[in-house]
Amino acid sequence: MPDDPDESFIVDTVLRHRPEGAPRGPTSAPMNPGDDAAVVSNDQCVTVDAMVEGVHWDDRLHPEDVGWKLVACNASDINAMGGIPTWGVLTVALPRPVDRDWVEAFSRGMGAALDTWSIQLIGGDTTRSPGPKVVSLTLSGSMAAPIGRDGANPGDDLWVSGPLGGPAAVFASPEIDPSPLARPKPPIGLGARLLGIANAMMDLSDGLARDLPRLCAASGVGAVVTPEALPIHPSAKGDTALAVGFGEEYELLFSASPEHRSLVLSAAEAFGRTPSRVGVITAERGVHLAGMPWPATLFSHFGGDQ
Amino acid sequence: MPDDPDESFIVDTVLRHRPEGAPRGPTSAPMNPGDDAAVVSNDQCVTVDAMVEGVHWDDRLHPEDVGWKLVACNASDINAMGGIPTWGVLTVALPRPVDRDWVEAFSRGMGAALDTWSIQLIGGDTTRSPGPKVVSLTLSGSMAAPIGRDGANPGDDLWVSGPLGGPAAVFASPEIDPSPLARPKPPIGLGARLLGIANAMMDLSDGLARDLPRLCAASGVGAVVTPEALPIHPSAKGDTALAVGFGEEYELLFSASPEHRSLVLSAAEAFGRTPSRVGVITAERGVHLAGMPWPATLFSHFGGDQ
Repeated sequence: MPDDPDESFIVDTVLRHRPEGAPRGPTSAPMNPGDDAAVVSNDQCVTVDAMVEGVHWDDRLHPEDVGWKLVACNASDINAMGGIPTWGVLTVALPRPVDRDWVEAFSRGMGAALDTWSIQLIGGDTTRSPGPKVVSLTLSGSMAAPIGRDGANPGDDLWVSGPLGGPAAVFASPEIDPSPLARPKPPIGLGARLLGIANAMMDLSDGLARDLPRLCAASGVGAVVTPEALPIHPSAKGDTALAVGFGEEYELLFSASPEHRSLVLSAAEAFGRTPSRVGVITAERGVHLAGMPWPATLFSHFGGDQ
Repeated sequence: MPDDPDESFIVDTVLRHRPEGAPRGPTSAPMNPGDDAAVVSNDQCVTVDAMVEGVHWDDRLHPEDVGWKLVACNASDINAMGGIPTWGVLTVALPRPVDRDWVEAFSRGMGAALDTWSIQLIGGDTTRSPGPKVVSLTLSGSMAAPIGRDGANPGDDLWVSGPLGGPAAVFASPEIDPSPLARPKPPIGLGARLLGIANAMMDLSDGLARDLPRLCAASGVGAVVTPEALPIHPSAKGDTALAVGFGEEYELLFSASPEHRSLVLSAAEAFGRTPSRVGVITAERGVHLAGMPWPATLFSHFGGDQ
């Protein structure tokens, strides 16, 4: 999903009218639009993602996979904060008459994902939609402490938890069978496992080309990426642009001190991942792909300040 | 909003595919589709409401009031559980190009409501909609203990916290100026104040005719309502059907022991409310409007088992 001026306008406007002032009760942290999930308190974070028919999916995606993906993308956001997803609430807006087969399949896929990650669905709201199907899931996570994007230090290794470019390959090549990629499996739990190891972390839902500059900007650092170190999904056939430029990835991007290399590898092993050390954090600002220019078109999405 | 078979089908299907099993982390309570908000733990509840253009509002409602109402209806659900709303996360799906004046006004109204009840907006998601505008707010509340619908005892007084029928009058009579009713002000805080006083509680978002039978069914009791005791909003001009049959009310319906009458009145006084004692809870099942038949058409919405 590229940023667009409309989206920025909406976020800015909502935030501008949001009351300031001290929070009440257990709530503690202000919204940080830069993080994957909002920190409610030291031990709770929360995220929400909406998916709209015709925007986030079309007929190529089976309704079971829509349900799965709705859970996966939110769970990935919690994972990226160092949290474990615990409970969710759902909204579903559907045109009438309701397509009952769709509801059945969507619910089955969502239920399978909730079951996979032991997430409780505790509430929801259904309504009629005179337009497309819209589904939205709010997910809460528990954690020992949040891991933000802003802790990367110069000299840190830059890690990616798994292969990139699979979703991009499916999008770019209609002849590829999308089914192996239709049920993304973010390494839920790995984020929490990296507490004390990772200095800064986020998921790659917008792709490395857009997300790495965000992590660097939040941390006040730069990065140099080694192209040949990038883990590229077999479907992307070695195409670096697909691996960094598209997104819809659910792997983690994180930085950690070089002295933690063996800890990183052993932490990830329990989640079936072999992370790739793709570069290094630099004191000098700016993100560089060593040895070749970063494709200019990718930069057009995010400008220099994210 | 009347129940409809489609809505029941969606809820039943989602719940059927929802994994069972023990919750993890601080989550404790299963979803109770009968309550206004889901109980996360002894001290947290959560609710979500979506509003869709053309379904929940039309051009008669100013976008500022859409923003206000989105907060008010969710805050009312938290209030009805005995909670105080603390934080929320928002989703906004809007057609492109974005109507910036609408976003500005919506955000202003939402911000005013958040400010009124000291609610923090801590996160959100924006997306494109190829159809109508869709907004959804998840709201979390803190509480000392939840007040459900299932604790009413035979002999309890039945109370309504304020006048009913205003929204119905606006809906039924296009000539009425809707502006005085466009910014509902649920008695946020009164719900929490009634802990230890009210035995069962809910808000009247679907109207007394549908909501009282739900409270009675959850508690395994019946009720007899005294028509002349019903507090009717001036706009409804004494029309009982408008007062009980429409909903979109944000007043509380609750039962309490007769020995707590003075406590009820003094608790409500702090919130500018003079509650009305509208009837009594009975051991015998069934809901009756003493002295006159309950309009049959109203019953058709909810059947005998809710």
